[in-house]
Amino acid sequence: MSEDQFTQIPGGVCAPEGFVGNAIACGIKNPTATRLDMAVLYSLDKCISSGVFTTNRVKAAPVRLSKKRVQGTQNIRAIIANSGNANACTGSRGMEDARIMAKLVADHLAILPQAVGICSTGVIGLPMPMARIKPKIEELMVELRPDAGEDIAKAIITSDTTYKEISIEYMQGDVPVRIGACAKGAGMISPNMATMICLVSTDASITKGLLNKALADGVNKSFNRITIDGDMSTNDTVLVLANGAAKAEHINAQNDDYKLFCKALNFVLLEMAKRVVRDGERVTKFVTVNVTGARTVKDAQKVAEAVAKSSLVKCSWNGGDPNWGRIIHAIGYSQAPVSEGKIDIDIAGLPACRRGLAAGTPTDALREAVQAHSFSVDINLNQGPYTYTVYTTDLSPEYVDFNRSEYAYWNQAIADGLSK
Amino acid sequence: MSEDQFTQIPGGVCAPEGFVGNAIACGIKNPTATRLDMAVLYSLDKCISSGVFTTNRVKAAPVRLSKKRVQGTQNIRAIIANSGNANACTGSRGMEDARIMAKLVADHLAILPQAVGICSTGVIGLPMPMARIKPKIEELMVELRPDAGEDIAKAIITSDTTYKEISIEYMQGDVPVRIGACAKGAGMISPNMATMICLVSTDASITKGLLNKALADGVNKSFNRITIDGDMSTNDTVLVLANGAAKAEHINAQNDDYKLFCKALNFVLLEMAKRVVRDGERVTKFVTVNVTGARTVKDAQKVAEAVAKSSLVKCSWNGGDPNWGRIIHAIGYSQAPVSEGKIDIDIAGLPACRRGLAAGTPTDALREAVQAHSFSVDINLNQGPYTYTVYTTDLSPEYVDFNRSEYAYWNQAIADGLSK
Repeated sequence: MSEDQFTQIPGGVCAPEGFVGNAIACGIKNPTATRLDMAVLYSLDKCISSGVFTTNRVKAAPVRLSKKRVQGTQNIRAIIANSGNANACTGSRGMEDARIMAKLVADHLAILPQAVGICSTGVIGLPMPMARIKPKIEELMVELRPDAGEDIAKAIITSDTTYKEISIEYMQGDVPVRIGACAKGAGMISPNMATMICLVSTDASITKGLLNKALADGVNKSFNRITIDGDMSTNDTVLVLANGAAKAEHINAQNDDYKLFCKALNFVLLEMAKRVVRDGERVTKFVTVNVTGARTVKDAQKVAEAVAKSSLVKCSWNGGDPNWGRIIHAIGYSQAPVSEGKIDIDIAGLPACRRGLAAGTPTDALREAVQAHSFSVDINLNQGPYTYTVYTTDLSPEYVDFNRSEYAYWNQAIADGLSK
Repeated sequence: MSEDQFTQIPGGVCAPEGFVGNAIACGIKNPTATRLDMAVLYSLDKCISSGVFTTNRVKAAPVRLSKKRVQGTQNIRAIIANSGNANACTGSRGMEDARIMAKLVADHLAILPQAVGICSTGVIGLPMPMARIKPKIEELMVELRPDAGEDIAKAIITSDTTYKEISIEYMQGDVPVRIGACAKGAGMISPNMATMICLVSTDASITKGLLNKALADGVNKSFNRITIDGDMSTNDTVLVLANGAAKAEHINAQNDDYKLFCKALNFVLLEMAKRVVRDGERVTKFVTVNVTGARTVKDAQKVAEAVAKSSLVKCSWNGGDPNWGRIIHAIGYSQAPVSEGKIDIDIAGLPACRRGLAAGTPTDALREAVQAHSFSVDINLNQGPYTYTVYTTDLSPEYVDFNRSEYAYWNQAIADGLSK
């Protein structure tokens, strides 16, 4: 099977059959702003749904509510999502606000509130400005349309520089099946659970158990392999709705149809994850860290993550500095039982280190190679057959500067009584 | 016992009875520079010695050599130390160079080469410029003097902005005993094992086993509790020489004399560790993260380290932003089983968060408090009796900028044939 099987089509998260939605400017972060910041996605048919959520012990109200609503045999068929406020660390009021938002959507659609999921992203610790949100949800729900994918993708972003969406079509037998998605990421991938959101829709027909398994596997190979500022990113929310509207054969076993669905879902999730990395806050490099030759997958993962998360390694990439010394030291402290004298490192395809020593490639050539926006670091531990890949970025002075202070916003928000 | 028992005295690492040394400008990093970059410390009497070394699997030649020379029943009585080149990732040539440096010192002192320890810090992956080093060691050894402490402290620093030394005296019974130390730190605390060095001398008389135990305990409460750029810092080298020249009672049991010695050693090590943090590369804040109310020490440690290492938390400190939302999220992903609704956070002595929610302290007051150069973050998990403290810093755009490129030096070094 190759990725050629998947035809990219327009429509984003509303591309699959039977999905409609809408987005609106609600002024959640700034009452005078006109950018889209609230969206709804709805399946005209009932759905099987699944979710993967933050492992952070501190969970925002919408995360707790959505998690509850897709677990066990429960399913959702609508999602209300907003940017500008994460509704995190907001206590019982936060949970009440999340319930109210979902209830308003459910009432409009004449479905049970339990069938509505909710995603919020933005600032932490401030209550939702419900006085402004409530009337806007009324407006939002007036007209749901099948061409809302792009607007939904735009409404969920925060400090992202571009919206991120994809939709593909593939043939299950002789029936076309579609998967659509949108995501928001930017910085805070992912110490702040409230940050990464990925909404996925499909018109495939699949059992709850298999959808859960397909999503968990897919997230493990995509969102769990990206890092921008030091922590892996399933700390967040990925929701999938599958409504069966394509009328393809129902998938109820791990057969070829299932394998194809998994491959398509993985492709969509990995594409979204990579775009999240590429659009990391004030990021100038996209770096693929490939580890091979490890004794176990876990060892390969430890090495890849140590390198991808090292502040000093990331600083050197920002400076276009082919500093393999910092890379080998990150490998050394990764806790994997590596052997210094066996380590090979290639940077952007050029040998930088062989058996723990400088490989002899002229520094100028290495430096030239890492000027590229996108390059690979290939690490061979020469100890075994296992591999692991992580997608990461550089660390820029601009990133730090950008994240120095949310105070200006806080102060303004409090002065304006936004949380009233 | 209080710290009042310890009188600070001049002399640094040469303050204890019977220690002499010297330092010289060798031009290791830059042949035309005149700053001190090589030093020797020597005990006129035989010593008991102990060391704590990097846990990085990639170890520099001097680390491997020194470790071997203080383990088991072996002891060193002289240390040769240099800055400018870490002699790391330099293979068998690096080990040969380290042996040669130690041997030249041993020959001058007419002692066995195995009685000489070696510490190198600086750039990684370049061979030592031995052609320049050898004649300079000859000069270095000509005159060893008891007032060399300050010069030794100056010779081991690299990107540190100040040298770091301390010496104290206390009474063991009616006999004065002294401990002296110098340290180098700055950035790279501590992904790069080659970086942190602390040399400690004492004229106490103590058994090897008790010195090992006292050092391990002391390092655990000092250098293992500091972080500047994300990793804990015993990845490096701490060496202690104890020569017994004070003629105080020999310490061969865990009695009051031993406890007093431990307390004095801890004081010296913690003071050195704190100064390393305060002088972190391009650091503007010194932050003490105190965790209390944990169910286990390990939980308290996980929480303290997660907060102290979070890039986003450190960015906000740099911006003078009292962002407790980022702190509670770092607590949440720390892997400790915390309970969001029980967490209290004080920033610079002011309540920022109570039971997981905003504490109501005006943001302006919190912001005012974190403008200070030095403040505490006190986190109470309200789950049990255990505590842990980590000393850390902010993360500044200037840090990233400073670490963007060592390329200029590398290129120059290679062009100049420094490694020839």
